Amino acid sequence: MVVHTDYLWFNTKKRQEFVRITDEIADIVKEGGVKEGMVLVSAMHITSGVFVNDWESGMIHDFPGGLETLAPAGLGYRHHQTGEDNADAQLKRTIMGHQVIVPVTDGALDLGPWEQIFYAEFDGQRKKRVIVKVMGVES
Amino acid sequence: MVVHTDYLWFNTKKRQEFVRITDEIADIVKEGGVKEGMVLVSAMHITSGVFVNDWESGMIHDFPGGLETLAPAGLGYRHHQTGEDNADAQLKRTIMGHQVIVPVTDGALDLGPWEQIFYAEFDGQRKKRVIVKVMGVES
Amino acid sequence: MVVHTDYLWFNTKKRQEFVRITDEIADIVKEGGVKEGMVLVSAMHITSGVFVNDWESGMIHDFPGGLETLAPAGLGYRHHQTGEDNADAQLKRTIMGHQVIVPVTDGALDLGPWEQIFYAEFDGQRKKRVIVKVMGVES
Repeated sequence: MVVHTDYLWFNTKKRQEFVRITDEIADIVKEGGVKEGMVLVSAMHITSGVFVNDWESGMIHDFPGGLETLAPAGLGYRHHQTGEDNADAQLKRTIMGHQVIVPVTDGALDLGPWEQIFYAEFDGQRKKRVIVKVMGVES
Repeated sequence: MVVHTDYLWFNTKKRQEFVRITDEIADIVKEGGVKEGMVLVSAMHITSGVFVNDWESGMIHDFPGGLETLAPAGLGYRHHQTGEDNADAQLKRTIMGHQVIVPVTDGALDLGPWEQIFYAEFDGQRKKRVIVKVMGVES
Repeated sequence: MVVHTDYLWFNTKKRQEFVRITDEIADIVKEGGVKEGMVLVSAMHITSGVFVNDWESGMIHDFPGGLETLAPAGLGYRHHQTGEDNADAQLKRTIMGHQVIVPVTDGALDLGPWEQIFYAEFDGQRKKRVIVKVMGVES
């Protein structure tokens, strides 16, 4: 049995950004030498998430719109009395999810035809981290 | 250590449908011969999900209503400029979740009293797939 | 390879309550003797959840407000014809998520700077259970 751990760093230019990370995760799985198992991809900050979806520019446009309706920025959140202004980011990342488990089959990510892994930043422009932990049977 | 993989196929009659799959998952766990571990149940399409909830017809009626409010069909989603009409399905499956991990204890699914595993179809009437991967210590 | 299982019990005073459980999970990981791996923390009832977020009183105030907007109590849910009154609790726990996987690195929970694990009760004042299953390589 093998457990292999790595971390990805992000520092997005915009406050809210979706970054495709499928290839980076595939590389870490290869480095870990796991043939059959699972890889956990999990955001380590409370205003960012990880999700699986389509890599299509319209979808990337629609999601922030949908999320803004569900968890609007600029409301009088009590969290903001601490000097923070990111309560909406915490709600958004909770709705999107902060982690995924991707199955590893025969040494590769076992994703469906349109599935891509994304990092979701909701309060960016500073350094953030994602943990990637692969676990399974060796190649 | 054992890792066992299987796939379930779906082709629902309606566009939106919830299908109970607890028994199918229990069978795959038994086939895998895992005594202690976890099973990942994950939708492989971006317009379907997997969730754990009550097997009660009222709940199955209320959830689509609640989801329709949160992620309405028929809006002017930019994703639809590609010719697709399923942007709401992508939002719905994101809110519901696309995967669960079910614990396996003493060779069986370790579920609470009312917990059932469901496949959630949001853009059906065509073939869709769910991956089931069991990982753990042998019986 | 080690798999170690434990259960946490809750009986909250209020109908809706968020309980920090990071220390309890860390203790179970230590008892399990896992050095590298993952721990699954999963609510076993359909009206409670588990999530990772900030331990900040404003956030703990804002989240129920945000959830109430998304999944209001007191609507005419069909589920209530069974005599239950907790359909909103099921929607709330679905939005918040009912489980997390926390990575274990070098024998400890590998959490980001502000990450804390919470039990989310949406229909409390009675006994509820959370399963905690650690899996990985021995210390």
